[in-house]
Amino acid sequence: MISLDRIQKDFDALARLGGCAEGGCTRLAFSDEDMAARDWLVSAMTAAGLSVRIDAVGNICGRREGDTDLPAVMLGSHLDTVPEGGHYDGVVGVLAALEVARALNLQNVSTRRPVEVVNFSAEESSRFGLATIGSKAMIGQLSVAVLKKLCDDRGQTLYRVLLDRGLAPDDLASAALIPGQVHAFLELHIEQGPVLEDAGVPIGVVTAIAAATRFKVVIEGHADHSGNTPMTMRKDALAAASELVLAVEQIAGQEAGPHTVGTVGALTVAPGAMNVIPGRVELWIDLRDIDSASKSVAVQRVMEAMTRIAEKRGVKIGHELICDDQPVVLSAKIRAEITAAVKTSGLASIDLPSGAGHDAMNMAAVTESGMIFIPSIDGISHNVAERTRMEDVFFGTQLLSAATLRLADQ
Amino acid sequence: MISLDRIQKDFDALARLGGCAEGGCTRLAFSDEDMAARDWLVSAMTAAGLSVRIDAVGNICGRREGDTDLPAVMLGSHLDTVPEGGHYDGVVGVLAALEVARALNLQNVSTRRPVEVVNFSAEESSRFGLATIGSKAMIGQLSVAVLKKLCDDRGQTLYRVLLDRGLAPDDLASAALIPGQVHAFLELHIEQGPVLEDAGVPIGVVTAIAAATRFKVVIEGHADHSGNTPMTMRKDALAAASELVLAVEQIAGQEAGPHTVGTVGALTVAPGAMNVIPGRVELWIDLRDIDSASKSVAVQRVMEAMTRIAEKRGVKIGHELICDDQPVVLSAKIRAEITAAVKTSGLASIDLPSGAGHDAMNMAAVTESGMIFIPSIDGISHNVAERTRMEDVFFGTQLLSAATLRLADQ
Repeated sequence: MISLDRIQKDFDALARLGGCAEGGCTRLAFSDEDMAARDWLVSAMTAAGLSVRIDAVGNICGRREGDTDLPAVMLGSHLDTVPEGGHYDGVVGVLAALEVARALNLQNVSTRRPVEVVNFSAEESSRFGLATIGSKAMIGQLSVAVLKKLCDDRGQTLYRVLLDRGLAPDDLASAALIPGQVHAFLELHIEQGPVLEDAGVPIGVVTAIAAATRFKVVIEGHADHSGNTPMTMRKDALAAASELVLAVEQIAGQEAGPHTVGTVGALTVAPGAMNVIPGRVELWIDLRDIDSASKSVAVQRVMEAMTRIAEKRGVKIGHELICDDQPVVLSAKIRAEITAAVKTSGLASIDLPSGAGHDAMNMAAVTESGMIFIPSIDGISHNVAERTRMEDVFFGTQLLSAATLRLADQ
Repeated sequence: MISLDRIQKDFDALARLGGCAEGGCTRLAFSDEDMAARDWLVSAMTAAGLSVRIDAVGNICGRREGDTDLPAVMLGSHLDTVPEGGHYDGVVGVLAALEVARALNLQNVSTRRPVEVVNFSAEESSRFGLATIGSKAMIGQLSVAVLKKLCDDRGQTLYRVLLDRGLAPDDLASAALIPGQVHAFLELHIEQGPVLEDAGVPIGVVTAIAAATRFKVVIEGHADHSGNTPMTMRKDALAAASELVLAVEQIAGQEAGPHTVGTVGALTVAPGAMNVIPGRVELWIDLRDIDSASKSVAVQRVMEAMTRIAEKRGVKIGHELICDDQPVVLSAKIRAEITAAVKTSGLASIDLPSGAGHDAMNMAAVTESGMIFIPSIDGISHNVAERTRMEDVFFGTQLLSAATLRLADQ
């Protein structure tokens, strides 16, 4: 039986490791706080009767043997957070996986396949600029050269940090799984969006994980005196940028696909004085979709908008591609198992895409991969105000348990 | 005869006092650089045969007696600059006035009225946050209490700085002129805009000085995950801000008066991350006009736009009035004298408004006040790239001399 008391106790213990003012959590990858959380997890796994192994980049795996040596069912997420983030993002998936394995042991339930609980290293990009580092290592998508290139804001390389934390970055290759080595991967995660709460259902079965195409855009107009330059003689970089912001909104909302989202999340104005017409604006565009074709349409339309605005206003608009990832459709087989488990549990669910990236998206490259979402209150995440009701954590863990049992007995 | 050689020599001497890298000038009010420039001016005035007096706030006045004791004709501008500003803003008007008086002495020309050359203290707001401090003192619009309140960014009050520079802030009232005490005021200044250059004429006769109404606007939306929040469920503060930026442009350019200008010069986005929908935007709106009624229309329309955008998008838009100044129409009599002098000199001129504030706008409260503009190359000012052709400085000085003679013999 899944125990909300045990989950709550684990949650409270972890919340003290990196807990910050205003109720949030700062536990950057491989920081002292993260190392304390990792140590806590190793102890908790051991206490739950799991055998622990830690790979070259610090992914922590707690294994419960099955009746056979068949490939295991793996469950998990991550314990690291963004700066001043919440206590739920990632944590819920690790603690739920731990509780699933622990409950199996406490009830002496045997499964055909082994069950492994995983904490992926450095899922958040906050410290080293790259997201899902642990799961990338696990699917063989990282190189030692990259570990030596990625730096935190104090100039420490990830390679150096791994060494300092007693890990073995030179053995990176040993962390990689081969396809078929794991039977299935399941990740429970908070939605980090408003859709489940809005629909009033506790469970989301994730259909696909959106991928982002991101641009840095630089608009160069002319910085003139705001009082002495007639409206007809201006090359206002911010006015041009404003048209682009609204074009991105229009294209994502109306012109591309049903799941396309487009955001200008950051924008800076130079010189940025009240009495000077903006001469230069830098802004960042984030386009996401679970459908490659729709995303391509959105990208194309945004390019056209940049050209049109530049011509109309006589400003220069340059752009630089920051990333152009491909969406990942999650395993139909796993979705069917999750949906079947939802039905027997009597919970309500909807299918939905994930707009954010997750470790499950990497794991899909080497195994059947699935994700379960539970609601985020007001859709808030990456924020000290991030909250999920503990009863929803409980429902999610029950469902994770039921789906794990179905997969582990295959 | 006005001598370009002498002006150039003065210009070169001053350019060394505060000259900075990349060719610009940093000479903040009452800084060591400004004090050196003021000392230089006192010596130059003395050498030119003027008798110098310095008032309570440091306005420097060099007087050339007339044949009578009638109220004088006053000419001048300011030597202080913005940080990393140019060598022409203000300086041209002081050096031209000096050259006019010096040439009269060198040619032994007598005038009916005295001629006074003035350097106003602290015209730029860069150091103490308030512009045209010297001329405000000269028209009795400052109080000792205000001198004690205005601080620079090191926390030094203007009052303290004046004392430290050997001036007498407690005698502020003695700096104030009474209406009629000066016969006329003339200021030669660079345009700081593109209109004269665009029109291909060397002289602008300033009709009026625009006044600004400024707002700080705060837009509060909701900071959500850029991937997980559908387009229909967003409250994007930057998209709302973008509509407002374009509304300001549209209202100033199309809906208010022919001389209305409107600018959003500064805008900041929070939290400002690529993967977070902007939750809060602060921006600053600067509306200017030489016509009060047109400016009121613009202000009203901008208010309506804020209400409309807030309602449509479900965001909160608050605003705070920063200033709401009244435009100043310059003396028709002085404009006629300048225009007459333009005609006899064979130069071309156009009438134009000034979008920026100047000391002449304050002086209009106590005397007939007029301004002459000369072209700014590419309209650039408040920038190390600020330039004006020396031949235009020469034409401007000749015109200032001609207009001064007309007024001084009245």
